Amino acid sequence: MKKDLVVGVIGGGRIGKLHTRNLVQMSGVTVKKVADIFADKMPTFEAEYGAPLVADFDEIFNDDEIDIVFICTPTDTHVEMIKRAAAKKKHIFCEKPISFSDEETIETYQIVKEAGVKFQIGVNRRFDRNFAQVKEHVANGSIGDIQLLRIDSRDPEAPPLSYVESSGGLFFDMMIHDFDMARFISGSEVKEVYAVGDALVNSELKGTDVDTAVVTLTFENGCLGVISNSRQAVYGYDQRLEAFGSKGASQAENELVNNVTLSTVEGVHSQKPLHFFLERYNDAYIKEVEEFVAAIHNDTDTPVTYEDGIMAQRLAFAANESLKTGKPVQVKKI
Amino acid sequence: MKKDLVVGVIGGGRIGKLHTRNLVQMSGVTVKKVADIFADKMPTFEAEYGAPLVADFDEIFNDDEIDIVFICTPTDTHVEMIKRAAAKKKHIFCEKPISFSDEETIETYQIVKEAGVKFQIGVNRRFDRNFAQVKEHVANGSIGDIQLLRIDSRDPEAPPLSYVESSGGLFFDMMIHDFDMARFISGSEVKEVYAVGDALVNSELKGTDVDTAVVTLTFENGCLGVISNSRQAVYGYDQRLEAFGSKGASQAENELVNNVTLSTVEGVHSQKPLHFFLERYNDAYIKEVEEFVAAIHNDTDTPVTYEDGIMAQRLAFAANESLKTGKPVQVKKI
Amino acid sequence: MKKDLVVGVIGGGRIGKLHTRNLVQMSGVTVKKVADIFADKMPTFEAEYGAPLVADFDEIFNDDEIDIVFICTPTDTHVEMIKRAAAKKKHIFCEKPISFSDEETIETYQIVKEAGVKFQIGVNRRFDRNFAQVKEHVANGSIGDIQLLRIDSRDPEAPPLSYVESSGGLFFDMMIHDFDMARFISGSEVKEVYAVGDALVNSELKGTDVDTAVVTLTFENGCLGVISNSRQAVYGYDQRLEAFGSKGASQAENELVNNVTLSTVEGVHSQKPLHFFLERYNDAYIKEVEEFVAAIHNDTDTPVTYEDGIMAQRLAFAANESLKTGKPVQVKKI
Amino acid sequence: MKKDLVVGVIGGGRIGKLHTRNLVQMSGVTVKKVADIFADKMPTFEAEYGAPLVADFDEIFNDDEIDIVFICTPTDTHVEMIKRAAAKKKHIFCEKPISFSDEETIETYQIVKEAGVKFQIGVNRRFDRNFAQVKEHVANGSIGDIQLLRIDSRDPEAPPLSYVESSGGLFFDMMIHDFDMARFISGSEVKEVYAVGDALVNSELKGTDVDTAVVTLTFENGCLGVISNSRQAVYGYDQRLEAFGSKGASQAENELVNNVTLSTVEGVHSQKPLHFFLERYNDAYIKEVEEFVAAIHNDTDTPVTYEDGIMAQRLAFAANESLKTGKPVQVKKI
Repeated sequence: MKKDLVVGVIGGGRIGKLHTRNLVQMSGVTVKKVADIFADKMPTFEAEYGAPLVADFDEIFNDDEIDIVFICTPTDTHVEMIKRAAAKKKHIFCEKPISFSDEETIETYQIVKEAGVKFQIGVNRRFDRNFAQVKEHVANGSIGDIQLLRIDSRDPEAPPLSYVESSGGLFFDMMIHDFDMARFISGSEVKEVYAVGDALVNSELKGTDVDTAVVTLTFENGCLGVISNSRQAVYGYDQRLEAFGSKGASQAENELVNNVTLSTVEGVHSQKPLHFFLERYNDAYIKEVEEFVAAIHNDTDTPVTYEDGIMAQRLAFAANESLKTGKPVQVKKI
Repeated sequence: MKKDLVVGVIGGGRIGKLHTRNLVQMSGVTVKKVADIFADKMPTFEAEYGAPLVADFDEIFNDDEIDIVFICTPTDTHVEMIKRAAAKKKHIFCEKPISFSDEETIETYQIVKEAGVKFQIGVNRRFDRNFAQVKEHVANGSIGDIQLLRIDSRDPEAPPLSYVESSGGLFFDMMIHDFDMARFISGSEVKEVYAVGDALVNSELKGTDVDTAVVTLTFENGCLGVISNSRQAVYGYDQRLEAFGSKGASQAENELVNNVTLSTVEGVHSQKPLHFFLERYNDAYIKEVEEFVAAIHNDTDTPVTYEDGIMAQRLAFAANESLKTGKPVQVKKI
Repeated sequence: MKKDLVVGVIGGGRIGKLHTRNLVQMSGVTVKKVADIFADKMPTFEAEYGAPLVADFDEIFNDDEIDIVFICTPTDTHVEMIKRAAAKKKHIFCEKPISFSDEETIETYQIVKEAGVKFQIGVNRRFDRNFAQVKEHVANGSIGDIQLLRIDSRDPEAPPLSYVESSGGLFFDMMIHDFDMARFISGSEVKEVYAVGDALVNSELKGTDVDTAVVTLTFENGCLGVISNSRQAVYGYDQRLEAFGSKGASQAENELVNNVTLSTVEGVHSQKPLHFFLERYNDAYIKEVEEFVAAIHNDTDTPVTYEDGIMAQRLAFAANESLKTGKPVQVKKI
Repeated sequence: MKKDLVVGVIGGGRIGKLHTRNLVQMSGVTVKKVADIFADKMPTFEAEYGAPLVADFDEIFNDDEIDIVFICTPTDTHVEMIKRAAAKKKHIFCEKPISFSDEETIETYQIVKEAGVKFQIGVNRRFDRNFAQVKEHVANGSIGDIQLLRIDSRDPEAPPLSYVESSGGLFFDMMIHDFDMARFISGSEVKEVYAVGDALVNSELKGTDVDTAVVTLTFENGCLGVISNSRQAVYGYDQRLEAFGSKGASQAENELVNNVTLSTVEGVHSQKPLHFFLERYNDAYIKEVEEFVAAIHNDTDTPVTYEDGIMAQRLAFAANESLKTGKPVQVKKI
C-alpha cells in the first residue's frame, strides 16, 4: 500500500468541514491541519472533525509534509490560494468557481500548468450516481447521438439577500453547476447561450439578481439544451436531468427521503426529495475526493480539470451578458 | 363481412346494462332484445342503452333469430337460464359464478356439452391489459418457471349487508375472480388451499361472512400462491398481482385516475387508483365479449370455458371449507 | 332531452374519420353527412364509420337541417370553409391551425363574430385528463404563483418529407399544440419567444425546416417557460409537462401501454408510452367534442375560442421569425 | 460529552467485520479488540478494519475496560458467549438468532435479566428508513387499524448447500427477519402460523430444507398477514412490505441502484434493486448500533429486546412445525 498523502485544508466553513469529515475517514490520505482565520472561535473543531485547526494559512503552505491543499475559502481568495499552493508544488483541490474574473482565471491557469501540480475543481455533481449513469448512457451510445439536454435545478430555499449580493449572481453561484453538467453530459462545448430570468421568488432582488432563470444552450455537436433554475422549490432540492437522442432518452429523477407511499382517501402520498446538497450529494462529495486522491497516487489526470473550471465560468459570463443585453451570446473558447 | 350475430340479454341490472351498452357499439353483433322482469319500471332503458326491453324471458329463448344469450340474472337463476338457452341451441355468455352448487354446475356442464353450443364464463379480468401482460410474461418464459404468485384484490367500499347475505360469501362473490386469475396466470391447477379470514371492516358480519381474507394456494406445477382480499380499501379499487419465477418477476400495478403528481411542502401527491370495476375494467369488459363473439363467428374455442367456471368455484368451495375447519383443503378435480 | 344537433363533417381523412367515429356514438348529436372530394374512392366509409359520405361540400353547406360543420380539410382550405359555414349560420368546429396567414385569420375572425355562430378550434390536448389536472393545479392555487412552465413534446416518428413541406413547418404543424398548452396552463399570454432549432433527426430537412427545437417563452404574468420538440422519439409519443410555482410543482407524466414491470437479471423493464396521438388522446378527442356540443345545446361559450386559435398561431409566427433572425421576438397582441 | 464506551467484538467474519467497520467510525464508542479463532489467518485485519485482532475470546471477556460485547460468532455459540458476557456484566449486542433451542434461549434470558446488562438482538431491518416509515404510519394511525400485512423478502442468490445445512433452515436463517418485522410493524404478537414451502430454486435441497415459502400469520390484534420468501431473485435483493388498514395502506418499495430510466425502442429500463443486504441495509446497520450505544449511554431500554429475539424464533419454530405437519400451528407465548 502506498504512503498516505498528507492534506491541509484552507477554510473551515461549511464546505471545509464537509471535506475534512470525509477526508479523515478516507484511506490513502491523512488530514494534517485545517486552517481558518476564525480558528479561535471554533474550539470544538478538532473533536468534531478529527483534525487540528490552525489560524494561519502559512502553517499549511509552509509545511513540507503537506502534499495536497484543499481550497475552501470564499471565491475572491481562490486565485491567491491557488498561486501560493502552486508555488509550493502542492496539489490543489479548489471549490468552484475559480474566480469571478476570466483574466485572473487564465493567468492562474498558466501558473498551475507550469507548476506541474494536479488540480481539480470541485464540481461534485459529476460524481452523483444518477448523473454519472446518464453520462454513461450518452457516452456508451445507449441514446445514440444526443439531440436535446434538459437540466432542472432548484434549491429548496433561497439564500439570504446578503449572501446573494456577494455570490456573483445566480449564474455564477448556482447555475455554474448546471453549466458544468451540460458540458459533462453532452461531451461537447457550448457555442451560444440565451438567458431569461427574473426575481420571482423574492421581488426585493429585482435590479440586483434573478432567482428564476431559463437558459437555452446551443452545443458545438449540434445538441440543443435548456437549463432552468429556481432559488426556491418548497418541496425540496430538485435536481433532475434528461438527455435525449436518436436512439432514446436517459432521465435522472430525484432521490426521495424514502421509498414509502401512503395511500389514503385523499390519494397516494410519497416523500419529498432529499432536502439539500448535503443529503443528496453526500456520496458524490466522497467520490470526487477519492478520485482526486487516486489520481495523485497513480499520477493520472484528475477527473475534472482546470479547463472544466474555466469553461463553466465562461458559460456563466455569457449568460450574464445575455440577460443584460436580451440577446444570445457566443461563448469564448480557451 | 359475416352476418351480424343476434344477441338477447337476460337481466337488465348493472351488469346487463354494461354488456348491452358495449354490445350495441360492437361490430359483428346486434342486440335484438333485453329481458328483465322489472321491465315496466325501466321506461328509459331503450333510449339509454339502445336496445328494446321486454319483461318475458321467453321472448328471447323462443326467438329463433337470436343466436346468443347473455345471462346477467342473479346467480341462483343461472342454471335454469343455461339449460333453457342450451335447449334452444343458443350460444351462452354467463356471468360468474355458474351456480352455488357443484352438483348443479356439473349436471349443467353435461347439458351444455351435449347441446354443442359455445359457452363463456364472464371473468373480465383475464382481458385486462395489465393482467394479460403478466400472463404473457409467464407463458412466454420471461420469468422462467413460476414459483410464487401473489394477488392483492381490494374493493373500494363494502357492499350492504343485505347484498353480502345473498352473495355466497367473500370467496364466492369476490375472491372467485382471483381464483380464476390464479389458474389463468399460473397455467396450473391448484391442489390445496388454506384460508384465514375475519370481519375486520364490518364487525356486524361476524358469524355470517368474512370481509378480509388471506388464502394460501399450492399449485400442481409446484408454484406457491397467496391471495388477499379486503372489502374496503378507502383509497380505491386495488387490483395488483405479481408472478415470480426462476428468471424474474412480472408485476401489475394499479391504474391511477391520472398520471399527474403534485409536489408541495407536504410531499409528493399522486392520484388514487381508478375507483371501481366499471372504471378499471371498462376495456376488459369490451374485450371479453369481442373475443367471445369472434369465437362464434370463427367457430373456435371460447377464451374462457365452462371448465374454468367449474374450477374457480371449486377453489371457493375449498376456501370456505378451510375457513370453517381451520385446515388446508384439497381441491376436487373435474 | 333536447333535440339532437345535426352535424356535417367536411373532410373524410384521418382526423375527419376520427371525429365521425366519435360523433356517431355520442348522445345529443347526429352525423347527417360527411363530405370528401375523394368520396368515390371510399366505398366502405359508411359501413365503417356509420355516416353517409358525399363528394360535394355544398350538400353540407346547403342543407338547412345541419346545425354544425366540422372542418377537417387541409389548413389551406380552412378560411374558405369557415366563411361558407358562417354565411349559412352553422356552428363551426375547425381543426388547428385556422390558417397560415395572420391577416386571413383576423379577417375571418370578424366574419365569424358577426355571424354569431359558435366556434371551437381543435386543440385536443386541453381535454387530456393529465394536462387538465395540471391546469387545475395551477388555476386552483395548488402550486401558488406559476414561475416556470416546461413542455416536452416528441412524436414517435418523423412524417415524410412531402408532408413536412406542406405542413407550415415544425412550429406551425407540431409546436402549435404546445403553444396553445402554454397559454392554457399558465393562464397568461406570452410576451416574447426565442427559438433555436435544427434538423437533427433528418439532415435532408436542413434549409427547409427544423425537426428539433427549443423555444423559450416569457409570459405577461412573469412566468418563464420552455418548450422542446422533436419529430422522433424512438420510444414512443412523449408528452409531458410541468408547472412550477411558489407553492409547488405539478407534473404530467406519460401514459404507458400498460402498468406492468418485468424484473430480470438485466434490470426492471416497463412499457413504452402509448404510441401516438390516436392512442394517447383518444378520450381527449371525445371530450373536446362533447364540450363543444354541450356549449351549443346550452348556449354557453365554447371551451376553446377563435382567439385561442389566433394566439397559438402568433406564437408560431414569432418562433419562425426568431429562428430566422436569431433574436428574441415580441408576440403581437390581438 | 460522555466517556467513550469500550467495545470488544467476538467473531471477525462477515458480520463482525461489518460491525467493526461501523463502530470504529462512530462517536461515543471505541473498539478495543476483535477476537476470532482464526486470527492468525487474517494478518491485514487491523489495517483494514482499524481494530486489533486477537485469537483468544478471553482477552475480551477478561478485559475490565470493555463495556460492551458484540457477539458475531455462529449461532451455536451464542448462548455460551451471552452467558460469559453476562457473567462479566458486559452489555451485549448479539446477532440473530439467539439459539436454535427454545429452552436454552429462555434459560439464558433469565441469566441476562439477572445480570442487569443491556441486551440487543441484531435485527437491522427495523432501522431501515423505509420499514421504519411504514412502522410510523401504522403507529401514528395514518392507516387506521391494521388489517393486512404483507412481507415479500427474496435474496438475490441462494447460499451454498453447505451453508444451508447448518443454517437452521429457511425459517430460522432467512424468514426470522421477516417474523421480526411482522411483530415490529403490526405492534402485535402472532397467534398462529401456517406454512407451505418447497425446494423450487434448487431441487437438491428437497428433504433437507425449502427455499421458497409462503407463511400465513394470524395476529392477536386481528390483523392477517403473509410472508413470502425465496432464496433467489435473479434481479436482486427484493425487500418490500405493505401494511393495509381501515384508513389506508403504507407500502415500502425497493431501493434501486440509481434513479435513472433509459427509454429506448424496446421500452423503459430502470435499475435493479440494490444487490444485497450490505448495500440495502448499510445505513440500518449503523443506526441499530448507534441506538444501542445511545441506550447504554443514557441508560434507557434498548430498541430491540431479548423478548423480541425469543418471539421471532418461536415464529420460526412454529413455521417449521407447520411445514412438517401440514397444519396451522399456535405460537407459544413467553
